[in-house]
Amino acid sequence: MALKLMPPPEASDAARDAAAVSEIAAQILAMGKSARAAASFLALAPAETRNRALLAAAAAIRNRRGEILDANKQDMAAAQQKSLSAALLDRLKLDDKRVEATAKGMEEIAAFPDPLGTVLAEWARPNGLTIQRVRVPLGVIGIIYESRPNVTADAGGLCLKSGNATILRGGSESFHSSRAIHGALTDGLRAANLPAEAIQLVPTTDRAAVGEMLRLNDYIDIIVPRGGKGLIERVQNESRIPVIAHLDGNCHTYVDGAADPAMARQIVLNAKMRRTGVCGATETLLMDRRAIAQLPSILNDLAAAGCEIRGDGETRALDPRVRPASEADWDTEFLDAIIAVKVVNGVDEAIAHINRHGSHHTEAIVTDDGDAARRFIERVDAAIVMHNTSTQFADGGEFGMGAEIGISTNRLPPRGPVGAEQLTTYKYVLRGSGQTRP
Amino acid sequence: MALKLMPPPEASDAARDAAAVSEIAAQILAMGKSARAAASFLALAPAETRNRALLAAAAAIRNRRGEILDANKQDMAAAQQKSLSAALLDRLKLDDKRVEATAKGMEEIAAFPDPLGTVLAEWARPNGLTIQRVRVPLGVIGIIYESRPNVTADAGGLCLKSGNATILRGGSESFHSSRAIHGALTDGLRAANLPAEAIQLVPTTDRAAVGEMLRLNDYIDIIVPRGGKGLIERVQNESRIPVIAHLDGNCHTYVDGAADPAMARQIVLNAKMRRTGVCGATETLLMDRRAIAQLPSILNDLAAAGCEIRGDGETRALDPRVRPASEADWDTEFLDAIIAVKVVNGVDEAIAHINRHGSHHTEAIVTDDGDAARRFIERVDAAIVMHNTSTQFADGGEFGMGAEIGISTNRLPPRGPVGAEQLTTYKYVLRGSGQTRP
Repeated sequence: MALKLMPPPEASDAARDAAAVSEIAAQILAMGKSARAAASFLALAPAETRNRALLAAAAAIRNRRGEILDANKQDMAAAQQKSLSAALLDRLKLDDKRVEATAKGMEEIAAFPDPLGTVLAEWARPNGLTIQRVRVPLGVIGIIYESRPNVTADAGGLCLKSGNATILRGGSESFHSSRAIHGALTDGLRAANLPAEAIQLVPTTDRAAVGEMLRLNDYIDIIVPRGGKGLIERVQNESRIPVIAHLDGNCHTYVDGAADPAMARQIVLNAKMRRTGVCGATETLLMDRRAIAQLPSILNDLAAAGCEIRGDGETRALDPRVRPASEADWDTEFLDAIIAVKVVNGVDEAIAHINRHGSHHTEAIVTDDGDAARRFIERVDAAIVMHNTSTQFADGGEFGMGAEIGISTNRLPPRGPVGAEQLTTYKYVLRGSGQTRP
Repeated sequence: MALKLMPPPEASDAARDAAAVSEIAAQILAMGKSARAAASFLALAPAETRNRALLAAAAAIRNRRGEILDANKQDMAAAQQKSLSAALLDRLKLDDKRVEATAKGMEEIAAFPDPLGTVLAEWARPNGLTIQRVRVPLGVIGIIYESRPNVTADAGGLCLKSGNATILRGGSESFHSSRAIHGALTDGLRAANLPAEAIQLVPTTDRAAVGEMLRLNDYIDIIVPRGGKGLIERVQNESRIPVIAHLDGNCHTYVDGAADPAMARQIVLNAKMRRTGVCGATETLLMDRRAIAQLPSILNDLAAAGCEIRGDGETRALDPRVRPASEADWDTEFLDAIIAVKVVNGVDEAIAHINRHGSHHTEAIVTDDGDAARRFIERVDAAIVMHNTSTQFADGGEFGMGAEIGISTNRLPPRGPVGAEQLTTYKYVLRGSGQTRP
C-alpha cells in the first residue's frame, strides 16, 4: 500500500525516516541489479569498445564544460555558505583547466594497454590437462568518495577500462558537479553502444545510501572508499563486502650515516614539502646519530620552506625553532607542513621505529651503504619501500601505471597503487580431453 | 586486583563468564603479539631453514605417532559419546596410514619451490627510478577449522613454507589430536632454531576464542576459515580482519549437443560420484536438449552407482527413478550422492542457469564444439572453468600447487586453490639515485 511507502504528514519522524530508508534501499538494490547485468555485458566488450567509450566521454566532458562549471558553481556556493575550509573548497572547485585535465585523464586511460584477457600463467599436468590463469574483471565496484568531483571521471573511467561496472557515491558537497560529469560519462557509454548502467551515480545525498551499498553483497563485489580516515573506518567497520582501503600514509624518511649529505637534504625537503597533503608525504624524519652533523642544514631547509618541526631532545638541542615532539606525533599523519624528527642509532633502530609507528604505506632510506639499504628494504613492512628517492613518488602515475584509484594499504593484493590492472582478478581455465580423476 | 580476574564462587554467572572472556581475550592478545614477533623473524628466515623445520616436523610426527593416536582415541571416545555422525567420526579418526600421510604432506611442502623473494615484475622509469614488485609473506594468518585434525599440520606447514606465522584454532572435537600434532610442529621449529611461536594453537575449546581472534586486527592479518557453511558465515559476518573464504561449491557439468557421448558419460559419473563430499563434486547436470538421447545411459550410470536423481519434467519422463527437483535443488550443494538434472536449450541457457544458481566455484562443459567451449569459458563467472574434464579436479594438488589450504571463492585474489604461493603478497621496491618529484 502506498501509505507504507509514503507516510502521511502526521506520521512520526521515525516512521518517515524508515520509509525514506526503505525507498533508498529499493533504489540501491535496483542499481545493484542493473550494474550486475551491465557488468556481464562489459566483461565481454572488446578493448576497442571500452576505449571508444572513454574517448567519447572525454569529448563529452569538453562539450559539457559550461554545464559542468555551472553545476560546480552551485556546489561552491552551498559549500561557502556552510563555511567549509579553504582546503576543502579548493578540492571542490573546478575551472577550465581542471575540466580539461579531467577530459585528458580519460584519454590517457584509453591509451593504456588492455588489462583483460592476459594469460598470467600457463602450465600442463602429467595427465594432459592444461591450466591457464587468465585476467578477468572483478564485476561490480562500489566507490564511495568525498569532495573531489573529478573522482567521478577517474574512478568511472578506470572501472570501465578494466571491464567493471561501477556504482559511484560522491560526497554531498560535490553532488551537482559529479552529476554533470556523470552525464558526460553516460554520453561516452552510449556513443560506444555500451549500457548506461555500466557507470551509475547514486542520485541522493542521503547518507543512508552508503549503508545500503555496504550491505549489497549480492550485487556489489568490491567497495573502494576514497576520502578521509573517518569515511574509510566507517566503511571498513560496516561493510559486508571486501574493501580496497587506503588508510593512513604515515611515511618516514631515514637518513643513514652513510648518506650523501646533498642528496639527503634534497630528498628530505622534497619528501616533506613538495605537497604536504598527499599520502606519500614524509611525516617523520629519522636521522642516524652518525649523520647528526647534517641535521642543522636539513632543519634549516625545512624551516625556511615554512615547515613546523617537532623533535626529540637531541634535535631540539640543535635548533631553537624545534618544538618538543609528543608520543602521539610519531603516530600522526600530519598531512600538513609539520614534521616530526627523531635521532636513532643506525638502520636497525630506524626499522624498529618504522615497523612500530608506520602505517605500512611508503618508507624510504637515504644511504650509500648497500648493506644498510638491503636490510631496510627487506625488513621494513610496507607496501612501498624506497632507496635514495623521495616518498612523494608513491603514486600510480609516477609508477607508470597511469591513473590510479588510490594506494591500497591492504595486505592482500591489490597492495600499493591501484590502477586499471589492479581492479581485475583471474580465473583458472582447465582444458582436457576427457580426463577423469582417479 | 585478583578479584576482578577471578571472581569468588558467589559471583554471578554473568560475572564469571565475563571474567572468563576477558581471560581468553588476554590470552589471544598475547598469542597475537608473539605471533607478530615470530612473523618478523620468519619473513627473514632463508628457505633452507623453513624447509628444515618442515622436514623435522615430518620426523617428529612419525616419532610421536603413538602419542598422536592415543590423543585421537580420547577425541574419538568423546565424539562417540556425543553421538556425532559417521561422516564426522570418519573425518576425526586417525590411524597409522593417516599419520604417515600427514608426515609425508610436510615433506611434500618442503620439496616445493620457495614462494618468497620472487621478483614478480620489474621496470624502469624515464627518470631513472627502477621499480620491482617482490613477493613477501602476508604476516600472521589465523586459521579456524573444524574436525579434521590433519588440518593442524597442513595449515601450519603451508604457513611456515610461505614465511607466515599462524594461530590455529581447531575444532573442539579434535582438540587432543590437534594438540599432539601441534607438539610435533613445534619440535620441527625448534630443530631449525625458529621461534616456537611461529605456529601456535589456541589452547582452549571455548568458542569465545574465535570471536577474540576475529577482533585482533592489529596482530592477525588474514583469517582463513575452513569448515562448514555455518562457520564460514559466522567468520565473514563477525571478522574485522580480511577473510580468505571458501563458500559453497555448487558446481555444474553441462553436456553440450556436440559432446562425445562416451566422454560425457565418464565425466558426469566421475564429476558426481568419485567423492560426493568434496567441494568440486558436480551438484547439477545440465543436458543440452540436442543430446537428450544420451541422458538415459548417463542416468543409468548414476543410479547404478547409488546416486539419487532429482530432475525436471523432461528428465523424469525418461526414467521413473528420477524424483521431481524443487526450485531449491538448483541452489543446493548436496555434498552427497544426490544430483539435480535439468534439460536446457544449448550453451547460452546453460551459462545463464550457472551464473544465476552457481556459486562461482567450478563449472565444466563437455563438448567437441570449440565455439561453444570458448563461449562457456568466457561467460561463466567462476574461479575455475573446465572443458572436457571432471569438476573433481578442482584441487590444489591436482593443479600441481602441492598442498592447499582450500579453494577461495573470494573475487579478489587469491581466488581458486590456495597453496603456499597464494598465502603471500608483494611489496614494491623503488631504487633511485637521489630523484626528487617535480
